[in-house]
Amino acid sequence: MRRFKVILEYDGTAFHGWQKQKNSVGLQNVLEEKLAILLRQPTLVSGASRTDAGVHALGQVIAFNVEGDKPPEIILRGINGLLPQSIRARSIEEMSPFFDPRRDAQHKSYRYTWFNHPVASPFWRRHSWHAHAPLDIAAMNQAAGSLVGEHDFSSFRAAGCTAKSPVRKILESKVIKDKERVQLRITGQAFLHQMVRIIAGTLYDIGIGKRNPGEMQAILAGKSRKLAGKTAPAEGLVLWEVVYGEIPRPGRKLLTLKV
Amino acid sequence: MRRFKVILEYDGTAFHGWQKQKNSVGLQNVLEEKLAILLRQPTLVSGASRTDAGVHALGQVIAFNVEGDKPPEIILRGINGLLPQSIRARSIEEMSPFFDPRRDAQHKSYRYTWFNHPVASPFWRRHSWHAHAPLDIAAMNQAAGSLVGEHDFSSFRAAGCTAKSPVRKILESKVIKDKERVQLRITGQAFLHQMVRIIAGTLYDIGIGKRNPGEMQAILAGKSRKLAGKTAPAEGLVLWEVVYGEIPRPGRKLLTLKV
Repeated sequence: MRRFKVILEYDGTAFHGWQKQKNSVGLQNVLEEKLAILLRQPTLVSGASRTDAGVHALGQVIAFNVEGDKPPEIILRGINGLLPQSIRARSIEEMSPFFDPRRDAQHKSYRYTWFNHPVASPFWRRHSWHAHAPLDIAAMNQAAGSLVGEHDFSSFRAAGCTAKSPVRKILESKVIKDKERVQLRITGQAFLHQMVRIIAGTLYDIGIGKRNPGEMQAILAGKSRKLAGKTAPAEGLVLWEVVYGEIPRPGRKLLTLKV
Repeated sequence: MRRFKVILEYDGTAFHGWQKQKNSVGLQNVLEEKLAILLRQPTLVSGASRTDAGVHALGQVIAFNVEGDKPPEIILRGINGLLPQSIRARSIEEMSPFFDPRRDAQHKSYRYTWFNHPVASPFWRRHSWHAHAPLDIAAMNQAAGSLVGEHDFSSFRAAGCTAKSPVRKILESKVIKDKERVQLRITGQAFLHQMVRIIAGTLYDIGIGKRNPGEMQAILAGKSRKLAGKTAPAEGLVLWEVVYGEIPRPGRKLLTLKV
Protein backbone atom coordinates (compact mmCIF):
# COMPACT_ATOMS: atom_id res chain seq x y z
CA MET A 1 0.00 0.00 0.00
CA ARG A 2 1.31 3.45 -0.96
CA ARG A 3 0.08 6.86 0.21
CA PHE A 4 0.01 9.81 -2.17
CA LYS A 5 -0.08 13.57 -1.71
CA VAL A 6 -1.81 15.51 -4.50
CA ILE A 7 -1.99 19.29 -4.91
CA LEU A 8 -5.46 20.25 -6.04
CA GLU A 9 -6.79 23.37 -7.79
CA TYR A 10 -10.50 24.05 -7.92
CA ASP A 11 -13.09 26.64 -8.79
CA GLY A 12 -15.39 26.24 -5.79
CA THR A 13 -18.36 28.06 -7.37
CA ALA A 14 -20.43 24.96 -8.04
CA PHE A 15 -19.53 22.88 -4.97
CA HIS A 16 -20.99 22.70 -1.50
CA GLY A 17 -17.58 23.01 0.09
CA TRP A 18 -14.85 20.49 0.76
CA GLN A 19 -16.56 18.05 3.12
CA LYS A 20 -18.41 14.93 2.10
CA GLN A 21 -22.18 15.37 2.26
CA LYS A 22 -25.21 13.20 1.93
CA ASN A 23 -27.60 15.41 -0.02
CA SER A 24 -25.29 17.75 -1.90
CA VAL A 25 -21.98 17.62 -3.71
CA GLY A 26 -18.88 18.26 -1.62
CA LEU A 27 -15.49 18.13 -3.30
CA GLN A 28 -14.58 15.15 -1.15
CA ASN A 29 -17.55 13.21 -2.62
CA VAL A 30 -16.40 13.93 -6.16
CA LEU A 31 -12.80 12.93 -5.48
CA GLU A 32 -13.66 9.71 -3.64
CA GLU A 33 -16.10 8.72 -6.38
CA LYS A 34 -13.59 9.32 -9.20
CA LEU A 35 -10.68 7.69 -7.35
CA ALA A 36 -12.83 4.62 -6.63
CA ILE A 37 -13.45 4.30 -10.38
CA LEU A 38 -9.81 4.87 -11.30
CA LEU A 39 -8.27 2.64 -8.63
CA ARG A 40 -11.09 0.07 -8.58
CA GLN A 41 -11.17 0.20 -4.79
CA PRO A 42 -13.15 2.23 -2.23
CA THR A 43 -10.95 5.25 -1.50
CA LEU A 44 -10.98 7.71 1.40
CA VAL A 45 -9.59 11.18 0.70
CA SER A 46 -8.26 13.50 3.41
CA GLY A 47 -7.83 17.22 2.78
CA ALA A 48 -5.60 19.84 4.41
CA SER A 49 -8.40 22.42 4.64
CA ARG A 50 -12.16 22.05 4.86
CA THR A 51 -12.98 24.92 2.52
CA ASP A 52 -16.56 26.25 2.74
CA ALA A 53 -19.12 26.24 -0.06
CA GLY A 54 -18.01 28.58 -2.85
CA VAL A 55 -14.41 28.90 -1.62
CA HIS A 56 -11.69 28.19 -4.20
CA ALA A 57 -8.29 26.54 -3.98
CA LEU A 58 -5.05 26.83 -5.88
CA GLY A 59 -3.14 24.69 -3.41
CA GLN A 60 -5.43 22.32 -1.52
CA VAL A 61 -3.50 19.23 -0.46
CA ILE A 62 -5.14 15.82 -0.33
CA ALA A 63 -3.93 12.34 0.54
CA PHE A 64 -5.19 8.84 -0.25
CA ASN A 65 -3.95 5.25 -0.26
CA VAL A 66 -3.42 3.12 -3.34
CA GLU A 67 -3.16 -0.68 -3.51
CA GLY A 68 -1.19 -2.14 -6.40
CA ASP A 69 1.61 -0.56 -8.39
CA LYS A 70 -0.03 1.94 -10.76
CA PRO A 71 2.66 4.59 -11.47
CA PRO A 72 2.01 8.05 -9.94
CA GLU A 73 1.91 9.83 -13.35
CA ILE A 74 -0.80 7.41 -14.50
CA ILE A 75 -2.84 8.13 -11.36
CA LEU A 76 -2.44 11.89 -11.95
CA ARG A 77 -3.56 11.69 -15.59
CA GLY A 78 -6.31 9.23 -14.78
CA ILE A 79 -7.87 11.38 -12.11
CA ASN A 80 -7.73 14.49 -14.31
CA GLY A 81 -9.42 12.51 -17.06
CA LEU A 82 -12.33 11.72 -14.73
CA LEU A 83 -12.70 15.02 -12.84
CA PRO A 84 -14.90 17.89 -14.06
CA GLN A 85 -13.01 20.85 -15.59
CA SER A 86 -13.52 22.84 -12.39
CA ILE A 87 -11.14 20.53 -10.46
CA ARG A 88 -7.59 19.58 -11.42
CA ALA A 89 -4.82 17.62 -9.72
CA ARG A 90 -1.64 19.61 -10.39
CA SER A 91 1.01 17.26 -8.97
CA ILE A 92 1.44 13.94 -7.22
CA GLU A 93 4.05 12.70 -4.75
CA GLU A 94 4.44 9.53 -2.74
CA MET A 95 4.54 10.08 1.03
CA SER A 96 4.94 8.02 4.17
CA PRO A 97 1.93 5.83 5.02
CA PHE A 98 1.28 8.13 7.99
CA PHE A 99 1.05 11.40 6.06
CA ASP A 100 -1.91 13.49 7.27
CA PRO A 101 -2.40 16.57 5.08
CA ARG A 102 -4.16 18.52 7.83
CA ARG A 103 -2.19 17.66 10.95
CA ASP A 104 1.21 17.63 9.26
CA ALA A 105 0.74 21.07 7.70
CA GLN A 106 3.30 23.57 8.98
CA HIS A 107 1.36 26.57 7.75
CA LYS A 108 -1.38 27.55 5.30
CA SER A 109 -1.84 30.65 3.17
CA TYR A 110 -5.13 32.12 2.06
CA ARG A 111 -5.86 35.08 -0.19
CA TYR A 112 -9.01 37.16 -0.11
CA THR A 113 -9.70 39.39 -3.13
CA TRP A 114 -11.86 42.47 -3.54
CA PHE A 115 -12.64 43.96 -6.97
CA ASN A 116 -12.52 47.66 -6.16
CA HIS A 117 -14.25 49.74 -8.82
CA PRO A 118 -17.63 51.49 -9.05
CA VAL A 119 -18.68 48.85 -11.60
CA ALA A 120 -18.40 45.09 -10.88
CA SER A 121 -16.29 42.91 -13.17
CA PRO A 122 -17.79 40.08 -15.27
CA PHE A 123 -14.32 38.47 -15.32
CA TRP A 124 -13.72 38.58 -11.58
CA ARG A 125 -17.29 38.02 -10.42
CA ARG A 126 -16.70 34.40 -9.37
CA HIS A 127 -13.38 35.13 -7.64
CA SER A 128 -13.80 38.39 -5.76
CA TRP A 129 -16.07 40.48 -3.56
CA HIS A 130 -17.15 43.65 -5.34
CA ALA A 131 -16.29 46.81 -3.35
CA HIS A 132 -17.68 49.79 -5.25
CA ALA A 133 -16.37 52.52 -2.92
CA PRO A 134 -12.60 53.21 -2.96
CA LEU A 135 -10.82 51.14 -0.29
CA ASP A 136 -8.18 52.69 1.96
CA ILE A 137 -5.37 50.18 1.39
CA ALA A 138 -2.97 51.71 3.92
CA ALA A 139 -5.59 51.49 6.68
CA MET A 140 -6.49 47.90 5.73
CA ASN A 141 -2.83 46.92 5.62
CA GLN A 142 -2.15 48.47 9.03
CA ALA A 143 -5.11 46.62 10.56
CA ALA A 144 -4.14 43.35 8.85
CA GLY A 145 -0.57 43.69 10.15
CA SER A 146 -1.78 43.96 13.75
CA LEU A 147 -3.02 40.35 13.54
CA VAL A 148 0.50 38.95 13.15
CA GLY A 149 1.62 36.91 16.15
CA GLU A 150 -0.12 34.56 18.55
CA HIS A 151 -3.57 35.73 19.64
CA ASP A 152 -6.92 34.55 20.93
CA PHE A 153 -9.06 34.80 17.77
CA SER A 154 -12.46 34.28 19.46
CA SER A 155 -13.73 37.45 17.74
CA PHE A 156 -12.97 35.94 14.34
CA ARG A 157 -14.53 32.54 14.85
CA ALA A 158 -17.80 31.28 13.33
CA ALA A 159 -20.57 30.27 15.74
CA GLY A 160 -20.30 26.56 14.89
CA CYS A 161 -16.49 26.33 15.15
CA THR A 162 -15.50 23.18 17.05
CA ALA A 163 -11.79 23.91 17.63
CA LYS A 164 -10.67 23.32 21.22
CA SER A 165 -8.57 26.44 21.49
CA PRO A 166 -9.24 29.86 19.91
CA VAL A 167 -5.52 30.69 19.97
CA ARG A 168 -3.80 30.79 16.59
CA LYS A 169 -0.46 32.07 15.33
CA ILE A 170 -0.42 34.34 12.26
CA LEU A 171 2.90 34.55 10.43
CA GLU A 172 2.03 37.05 7.71
CA SER A 173 -0.96 39.32 7.14
CA LYS A 174 -0.93 42.16 4.64
CA VAL A 175 -3.16 43.93 2.13
CA ILE A 176 -1.82 44.80 -1.31
CA LYS A 177 -3.33 46.42 -4.40
CA ASP A 178 -2.89 45.40 -8.05
CA LYS A 179 -4.90 47.65 -10.38
CA GLU A 180 -8.58 47.17 -9.41
CA ARG A 181 -7.83 44.17 -7.23
CA VAL A 182 -7.18 44.48 -3.52
CA GLN A 183 -5.90 41.37 -1.79
CA LEU A 184 -5.44 40.14 1.77
CA ARG A 185 -2.55 37.69 1.97
CA ILE A 186 -2.58 35.80 5.23
CA THR A 187 -0.46 32.89 6.45
CA GLY A 188 -0.87 31.04 9.73
CA GLN A 189 -0.18 27.71 11.38
CA ALA A 190 -3.90 26.98 11.31
CA PHE A 191 -7.18 28.90 11.19
CA LEU A 192 -10.50 28.79 13.02
CA HIS A 193 -13.71 28.18 11.07
CA GLN A 194 -14.41 31.16 8.76
CA MET A 195 -11.59 33.11 10.42
CA VAL A 196 -10.20 34.53 7.17
CA ARG A 197 -13.64 35.59 5.93
CA ILE A 198 -14.48 37.31 9.23
CA ILE A 199 -11.10 39.09 9.10
CA ALA A 200 -11.87 40.11 5.48
CA GLY A 201 -15.31 41.41 6.50
CA THR A 202 -13.71 43.49 9.26
CA LEU A 203 -10.97 44.79 6.94
CA TYR A 204 -13.69 45.85 4.50
CA ASP A 205 -15.29 48.02 7.21
CA ILE A 206 -11.86 49.58 7.80
CA GLY A 207 -11.29 50.01 4.05
CA ILE A 208 -14.51 51.99 3.56
CA GLY A 209 -13.79 54.11 6.65
CA LYS A 210 -16.58 52.72 8.83
CA ARG A 211 -13.98 51.71 11.43
CA ASN A 212 -10.42 52.88 11.92
CA PRO A 213 -7.43 50.52 11.67
CA GLY A 214 -6.59 50.83 15.37
CA GLU A 215 -9.86 49.07 16.26
CA MET A 216 -8.47 45.73 15.10
CA GLN A 217 -6.52 45.25 18.32
CA ALA A 218 -9.55 46.15 20.46
CA ILE A 219 -11.67 43.63 18.51
CA LEU A 220 -9.03 40.93 19.19
CA ALA A 221 -8.83 41.88 22.86
CA GLY A 222 -12.64 41.82 23.25
CA LYS A 223 -12.82 38.10 22.33
CA SER A 224 -16.37 38.28 21.03
CA ARG A 225 -17.68 37.51 17.54
CA LYS A 226 -20.07 40.46 17.88
CA LEU A 227 -17.18 42.93 17.79
CA ALA A 228 -15.88 41.90 14.35
CA GLY A 229 -17.38 42.67 10.95
CA LYS A 230 -19.61 40.40 8.91
CA THR A 231 -18.37 37.21 7.27
CA ALA A 232 -17.11 38.18 3.81
CA PRO A 233 -18.62 36.27 0.83
CA ALA A 234 -17.04 32.90 0.03
CA GLU A 235 -16.25 33.69 -3.63
CA GLY A 236 -13.42 36.08 -2.69
CA LEU A 237 -11.45 33.42 -0.80
CA VAL A 238 -8.75 31.14 -2.20
CA LEU A 239 -6.78 28.51 -0.28
CA TRP A 240 -3.45 29.50 -1.77
CA GLU A 241 -0.84 27.12 -0.39
CA VAL A 242 -0.23 24.52 2.30
CA VAL A 243 3.38 24.23 3.40
CA TYR A 244 4.87 21.13 5.02
CA GLY A 245 8.11 20.97 6.92
CA GLU A 246 10.45 18.02 7.08
CA ILE A 247 8.08 15.27 6.02
CA PRO A 248 9.51 11.79 5.79
CA ARG A 249 9.41 10.24 2.35
CA PRO A 250 8.99 6.45 1.98
CA GLY A 251 12.73 5.81 1.82
CA ARG A 252 13.36 7.27 5.26
CA LYS A 253 13.08 5.66 8.64
CA LEU A 254 9.49 5.60 9.79
CA LEU A 255 10.69 6.20 13.35
CA THR A 256 11.12 9.88 12.60
CA LEU A 257 7.59 10.23 11.30
CA LYS A 258 5.62 11.69 14.15
CA VAL A 259 6.96 14.32 16.49
CA MET B 1 -31.80 63.19 -29.19
CA ARG B 2 -28.37 62.34 -27.75
CA ARG B 3 -25.98 59.58 -28.78
CA PHE B 4 -23.90 57.72 -26.19
CA LYS B 5 -20.74 55.66 -26.34
CA VAL B 6 -20.45 52.95 -23.70
CA ILE B 7 -17.43 50.72 -22.97
CA LEU B 8 -18.62 47.19 -22.31
CA GLU B 9 -16.97 44.26 -20.53
CA TYR B 10 -18.37 40.77 -20.91
CA ASP B 11 -17.70 37.13 -20.22
CA GLY B 12 -18.78 35.67 -23.56
CA THR B 13 -19.06 32.07 -22.31
CA ALA B 14 -22.85 31.95 -22.23
CA PHE B 15 -23.64 34.09 -25.28
CA HIS B 16 -24.04 33.26 -28.94
CA GLY B 17 -21.74 36.08 -29.96
CA TRP B 18 -22.33 39.77 -30.41
CA GLN B 19 -24.88 39.84 -33.20
CA LYS B 20 -28.63 39.90 -32.75
CA GLN B 21 -30.22 36.53 -33.43
CA LYS B 22 -33.68 35.13 -33.75
CA ASN B 23 -33.39 31.79 -31.99
CA SER B 24 -30.51 32.28 -29.60
CA VAL B 25 -29.14 34.99 -27.33
CA GLY B 26 -26.65 37.39 -28.87
CA LEU B 27 -25.24 40.18 -26.71
CA GLN B 28 -26.95 42.73 -28.96
CA ASN B 29 -30.33 41.15 -28.11
CA VAL B 30 -29.67 41.43 -24.39
CA LEU B 31 -28.52 45.05 -24.60
CA GLU B 32 -31.38 46.21 -26.82
CA GLU B 33 -33.91 44.48 -24.56
CA LYS B 34 -32.51 46.02 -21.36
CA LEU B 35 -32.08 49.51 -22.88
CA ALA B 36 -35.68 49.41 -24.17
CA ILE B 37 -36.84 48.75 -20.60
CA LEU B 38 -34.59 51.42 -19.10
CA LEU B 39 -35.25 54.13 -21.67
CA ARG B 40 -38.88 53.16 -22.39
CA GLN B 41 -38.22 53.32 -26.11
CA PRO B 42 -37.18 50.79 -28.76
CA THR B 43 -33.37 51.06 -28.89
CA LEU B 44 -30.88 49.95 -31.54
CA VAL B 45 -27.36 49.19 -30.35
CA SER B 46 -24.29 49.28 -32.63
CA GLY B 47 -21.04 47.59 -31.63
CA ALA B 48 -17.43 48.17 -32.67
CA SER B 49 -16.72 44.47 -33.10
CA ARG B 50 -18.97 41.52 -33.92
CA THR B 51 -17.35 39.09 -31.49
CA ASP B 52 -18.10 35.40 -32.15
CA ALA B 53 -19.88 33.02 -29.78
CA GLY B 54 -17.76 32.46 -26.67
CA VAL B 55 -15.41 35.40 -27.31
CA HIS B 56 -14.97 37.84 -24.40
CA ALA B 57 -14.53 41.61 -24.25
CA LEU B 58 -12.86 43.99 -21.85
CA GLY B 59 -13.28 46.97 -24.18
CA GLN B 60 -16.18 46.46 -26.57
CA VAL B 61 -17.59 49.86 -27.61
CA ILE B 62 -21.28 50.32 -28.27
CA ALA B 63 -23.44 53.28 -29.25
CA PHE B 64 -27.15 54.05 -28.94
CA ASN B 65 -29.51 57.01 -29.06
CA VAL B 66 -31.49 58.37 -26.13
CA GLU B 67 -34.57 60.60 -26.24
CA GLY B 68 -35.22 62.78 -23.21
CA ASP B 69 -32.72 64.13 -20.71
CA LYS B 70 -31.85 61.23 -18.41
CA PRO B 71 -28.31 61.98 -17.07
CA PRO B 72 -25.54 59.69 -18.38
CA GLU B 73 -24.61 58.39 -14.89
CA ILE B 74 -28.22 57.32 -14.37
CA ILE B 75 -28.21 55.49 -17.71
CA LEU B 76 -24.94 53.74 -16.75
CA ARG B 77 -26.25 52.63 -13.36
CA GLY B 78 -29.64 51.74 -14.77
CA ILE B 79 -28.25 49.47 -17.46
CA ASN B 80 -25.90 47.74 -15.02
CA GLY B 81 -28.87 47.16 -12.73
CA LEU B 82 -30.71 45.33 -15.53
CA LEU B 83 -27.85 43.40 -17.17
CA PRO B 84 -26.78 39.91 -16.06
CA GLN B 85 -23.54 39.78 -14.01
CA SER B 86 -21.66 38.53 -17.06
CA ILE B 87 -22.04 41.93 -18.80
CA ARG B 88 -21.12 45.34 -17.38
CA ALA B 89 -21.05 48.85 -18.81
CA ARG B 90 -17.81 50.38 -17.50
CA SER B 91 -18.18 54.01 -18.70
CA ILE B 92 -20.47 56.30 -20.66
CA GLU B 93 -19.76 59.36 -22.80
CA GLU B 94 -21.92 61.56 -25.01
CA MET B 95 -20.81 61.64 -28.65
CA SER B 96 -21.86 63.35 -31.87
CA PRO B 97 -25.14 62.08 -33.35
CA PHE B 98 -23.11 60.53 -36.19
CA PHE B 99 -20.78 58.43 -34.04
CA ASP B 100 -20.39 54.92 -35.48
CA PRO B 101 -18.38 52.67 -33.14
CA ARG B 102 -17.27 50.36 -35.94
CA ARG B 103 -16.48 52.73 -38.79
CA ASP B 104 -14.97 55.47 -36.61
CA ALA B 105 -12.58 53.08 -34.84
CA GLN B 106 -8.96 53.97 -35.51
CA HIS B 107 -7.65 50.64 -34.32
CA LYS B 108 -8.63 47.61 -32.25
CA SER B 109 -6.61 45.37 -29.97
CA TYR B 110 -7.27 41.72 -29.25
CA ARG B 111 -5.52 39.33 -26.89
CA TYR B 112 -5.42 35.59 -27.26
CA THR B 113 -4.39 33.55 -24.20
CA TRP B 114 -3.01 30.04 -23.87
CA PHE B 115 -2.69 28.31 -20.50
CA ASN B 116 0.59 26.47 -20.95
CA HIS B 117 1.02 23.67 -18.43
CA PRO B 118 0.67 19.87 -18.58
CA VAL B 119 -2.49 20.22 -16.46
CA ALA B 120 -5.38 22.54 -17.43
CA SER B 121 -6.44 25.29 -15.03
CA PRO B 122 -9.91 25.39 -13.42
CA PHE B 123 -9.45 29.17 -13.00
CA TRP B 124 -8.46 29.93 -16.57
CA ARG B 125 -10.62 27.33 -18.30
CA ARG B 126 -13.18 29.88 -19.55
CA HIS B 127 -10.55 32.40 -20.67
CA SER B 128 -7.78 30.44 -22.32
CA TRP B 129 -6.89 27.61 -24.66
CA HIS B 130 -5.07 24.83 -22.82
CA ALA B 131 -1.67 24.01 -24.38
CA HIS B 132 -0.20 21.09 -22.47
CA ALA B 133 3.14 20.88 -24.32
CA PRO B 134 5.69 23.66 -23.64
CA LEU B 135 5.28 26.49 -26.18
CA ASP B 136 8.32 28.05 -27.88
CA ILE B 137 7.61 31.71 -27.08
CA ALA B 138 10.55 33.11 -29.08
CA ALA B 139 9.39 31.26 -32.22
CA MET B 140 5.78 32.36 -31.73
CA ASN B 141 6.85 35.96 -31.15
CA GLN B 142 9.03 35.97 -34.26
CA ALA B 143 6.17 34.62 -36.39
CA ALA B 144 3.67 37.06 -34.83
CA GLY B 145 6.03 39.97 -35.55
CA SER B 146 6.17 39.11 -39.25
CA LEU B 147 2.47 40.00 -39.53
CA VAL B 148 3.09 43.68 -38.73
CA GLY B 149 2.45 45.96 -41.70
CA GLU B 150 -0.07 45.98 -44.54
CA HIS B 151 -0.74 42.52 -46.01
CA ASP B 152 -3.29 40.47 -47.88
CA PHE B 153 -4.69 38.28 -45.10
CA SER B 154 -6.64 35.85 -47.31
CA SER B 155 -4.92 32.94 -45.55
CA PHE B 156 -6.32 34.12 -42.20
CA ARG B 157 -9.90 34.68 -43.23
CA ALA B 158 -12.91 32.52 -42.34
CA ALA B 159 -14.85 30.94 -45.22
CA GLY B 160 -17.93 33.10 -44.65
CA CYS B 161 -16.09 36.43 -44.36
CA THR B 162 -17.92 39.13 -46.35
CA ALA B 163 -15.25 41.88 -46.28
CA LYS B 164 -14.61 43.41 -49.71
CA SER B 165 -10.85 43.52 -49.37
CA PRO B 166 -8.58 40.98 -47.63
CA VAL B 167 -5.94 43.67 -47.07
CA ARG B 168 -5.46 44.76 -43.47
CA LYS B 169 -2.83 46.75 -41.60
CA ILE B 170 -1.39 45.32 -38.39
CA LEU B 171 0.25 47.83 -36.06
CA GLU B 172 1.47 45.53 -33.30
CA SER B 173 1.72 41.76 -33.01
CA LYS B 174 3.71 40.03 -30.30
CA VAL B 175 3.65 37.02 -28.02
CA ILE B 176 4.55 37.37 -24.35
CA LYS B 177 4.65 34.98 -21.39
CA ASP B 178 3.48 35.61 -17.83
CA LYS B 179 3.95 32.50 -15.64
CA GLU B 180 1.76 29.76 -17.19
CA ARG B 181 -0.04 32.19 -19.49
CA VAL B 182 1.14 32.87 -23.02
CA GLN B 183 -0.53 35.77 -24.78
CA LEU B 184 -0.77 37.10 -28.32
CA ARG B 185 -1.27 40.88 -28.30
CA ILE B 186 -2.37 42.14 -31.66
CA THR B 187 -3.50 45.59 -32.79
CA GLY B 188 -4.76 46.52 -36.23
CA GLN B 189 -6.94 49.03 -38.03
CA ALA B 190 -9.52 46.31 -38.60
CA PHE B 191 -9.66 42.51 -38.81
CA LEU B 192 -11.22 39.95 -41.14
CA HIS B 193 -13.71 37.42 -39.77
CA GLN B 194 -11.92 35.04 -37.33
CA MET B 195 -8.56 36.48 -38.38
CA VAL B 196 -7.14 36.61 -34.84
CA ARG B 197 -8.25 33.07 -34.04
CA ILE B 198 -6.75 31.70 -37.27
CA ILE B 199 -3.51 33.56 -36.49
CA ALA B 200 -3.61 32.06 -32.96
CA GLY B 201 -4.18 28.57 -34.37
CA THR B 202 -1.17 29.02 -36.67
CA LEU B 203 0.99 30.40 -33.86
CA TYR B 204 0.08 27.34 -31.79
CA ASP B 205 1.47 25.06 -34.52
CA ILE B 206 4.66 27.13 -34.44
CA GLY B 207 4.75 27.08 -30.63
CA ILE B 208 4.64 23.27 -30.48
CA GLY B 209 7.27 22.99 -33.21
CA LYS B 210 4.97 21.57 -35.91
CA ARG B 211 5.90 24.50 -38.17
CA ASN B 212 8.82 26.89 -38.00
CA PRO B 213 8.40 30.65 -37.51
CA GLY B 214 9.67 31.50 -41.01
CA GLU B 215 6.60 29.78 -42.50
CA MET B 216 4.35 32.65 -41.42
CA GLN B 217 5.48 34.80 -44.35
CA ALA B 218 4.95 31.96 -46.84
CA ILE B 219 1.44 31.40 -45.46
CA LEU B 220 0.67 35.12 -45.94
CA ALA B 221 2.12 35.07 -49.46
CA GLY B 222 0.14 31.96 -50.44
CA LYS B 223 -3.21 33.73 -49.86
CA SER B 224 -5.13 30.55 -49.10
CA ARG B 225 -6.98 29.58 -45.94
CA LYS B 226 -5.73 26.02 -46.38
CA LEU B 227 -2.16 27.09 -45.65
CA ALA B 228 -2.86 28.48 -42.15
CA GLY B 229 -3.54 26.52 -38.96
CA LYS B 230 -6.91 25.70 -37.48
CA THR B 231 -9.17 28.33 -35.96
CA ALA B 232 -8.23 28.59 -32.26
CA PRO B 233 -11.08 28.10 -29.74
CA ALA B 234 -13.20 31.17 -28.98
CA GLU B 235 -12.67 31.12 -25.20
CA GLY B 236 -9.04 32.27 -25.48
CA LEU B 237 -9.96 35.50 -27.27
CA VAL B 238 -10.66 38.89 -25.69
CA LEU B 239 -11.53 42.11 -27.50
CA TRP B 240 -9.18 44.24 -25.42
CA GLU B 241 -9.59 47.83 -26.59
CA VAL B 242 -11.03 49.97 -29.37
CA VAL B 243 -9.22 53.25 -29.94
CA TYR B 244 -10.78 56.30 -31.58
CA GLY B 245 -8.92 59.25 -32.98
CA GLU B 246 -10.15 62.83 -33.03
CA ILE B 247 -13.87 62.23 -32.61
CA PRO B 248 -16.08 65.30 -32.50
CA ARG B 249 -17.98 65.76 -29.25
CA PRO B 250 -21.45 67.38 -29.31
CA GLY B 251 -20.07 70.88 -28.72
CA ARG B 252 -17.96 70.86 -31.88
CA LYS B 253 -18.88 71.75 -35.43
CA LEU B 254 -20.63 68.85 -37.11
CA LEU B 255 -18.91 69.81 -40.38
CA THR B 256 -15.70 68.13 -39.25
CA LEU B 257 -17.48 64.87 -38.48
CA LYS B 258 -16.93 62.67 -41.47
CA VAL B 259 -13.68 62.51 -43.37
